[in-house]
Amino acid sequence: MRYELYYWPEIQGRGEYVRLALEEAGAAYVDVAREGNGTPKMLRVMEQGGTPPFAPPFLKAGKLVIGQTANILLYLGARHSLAPKTEAGKLWLHQLQLTIADFVLEIHDTHHPLGPSLYYEDQKAPAKRRSEAFWNERVPKYLGYFERILKDGGGTYVTGRRVSYVDLSLFQIIDGLRYAFPKRMTAFEDAVPGLLELRDRVAARPNIKAYLASDRRIPFNESGIFRRYKELDA
Amino acid sequence: MRYELYYWPEIQGRGEYVRLALEEAGAAYVDVAREGNGTPKMLRVMEQGGTPPFAPPFLKAGKLVIGQTANILLYLGARHSLAPKTEAGKLWLHQLQLTIADFVLEIHDTHHPLGPSLYYEDQKAPAKRRSEAFWNERVPKYLGYFERILKDGGGTYVTGRRVSYVDLSLFQIIDGLRYAFPKRMTAFEDAVPGLLELRDRVAARPNIKAYLASDRRIPFNESGIFRRYKELDA
Repeated sequence: MRYELYYWPEIQGRGEYVRLALEEAGAAYVDVAREGNGTPKMLRVMEQGGTPPFAPPFLKAGKLVIGQTANILLYLGARHSLAPKTEAGKLWLHQLQLTIADFVLEIHDTHHPLGPSLYYEDQKAPAKRRSEAFWNERVPKYLGYFERILKDGGGTYVTGRRVSYVDLSLFQIIDGLRYAFPKRMTAFEDAVPGLLELRDRVAARPNIKAYLASDRRIPFNESGIFRRYKELDA
Repeated sequence: MRYELYYWPEIQGRGEYVRLALEEAGAAYVDVAREGNGTPKMLRVMEQGGTPPFAPPFLKAGKLVIGQTANILLYLGARHSLAPKTEAGKLWLHQLQLTIADFVLEIHDTHHPLGPSLYYEDQKAPAKRRSEAFWNERVPKYLGYFERILKDGGGTYVTGRRVSYVDLSLFQIIDGLRYAFPKRMTAFEDAVPGLLELRDRVAARPNIKAYLASDRRIPFNESGIFRRYKELDA
């Protein structure tokens, strides 16, 4: 079976967490919206009856249409050995991914504190205040939490010896923060040595390395979640 | 087995989605932080090694400690007939709950657009702008989506004849919006007749009715997700 991934074609965004899992797994998939006429096709799926997703990304797996990033990873993790096999292990990993999802939303809100309906240019002052609070309190809290879990686990990856979809997502978080906030991240990152090592370990995995070097990896840009705005990186 | 629910004792907050599921199921549980010395006990669980939750709510089920509201509901749904039995049905319901979780975060951000680190009083002007955009674009989008799903399904509840944890959560969303934004919600709610009926259907279920009349149901207040601030309800 070839999966179909549906996501906005111009950005990494939330789709990237799914792409990383599919690539690590070596799964066959099409990134539908990046093909000719793909975006209208994606929008049609969202307008259909039955079980339409609220928003991209979503994954077609045979007859299944699965929406919500963490839900897609829950599904893929079980099928491609990117999650533990026990129920307790699965719930734990999914819990971590949902915490990453919360963090991703807070990252997005650094440039969109007044919500997704207004342009960045119309919310620059609140974005500055939110970015300040984000770096003072939220980054240390979230990344400190993951650093502690890595250290307590004592393993190579968050659940031990095997890579999981959460490790792939943490790679993306570290690289994204480095892209969007180069100064702030440089000043901060000594506090999370375990996460930096994890990031390098993921980047060196053969399938991920090949993916990152390919044109399937969309570069970071100022339409995605991680945006480099100098004024927010004071 | 008696479940232990851990959540802040003074608010409904995200814990309420779990309470509603436990109450509908008639499950035996203790709301730990509402008992003597409960909050320090809760904080100790979060500081422990192993698989500590990032934040409340979390549920102890025997040896399992499960964090993240939607993850807890995924677990309870399968055990207490509050979710379909098929994999496709489970994934679909969980997807809807994750969309509700996104909406809940946007509801929270109407009064905290600059993030959870600052007081409401320090972000009143951006809160007004965010609330305006929220009611103009986000409420119609989210509630319109759930209204459409209900109608397309043609059933009594979102997945058909049987109540699910998503129905319970939608009850909470409708009641919360009525509490926090009485004027705006009155003006809006004719647009979602199916959701209003669903809300009444849930409220009339014997276990939910008994719960809402009990002192286990914490009243809405201005420390929770749904806060009544006159200036945001223009």
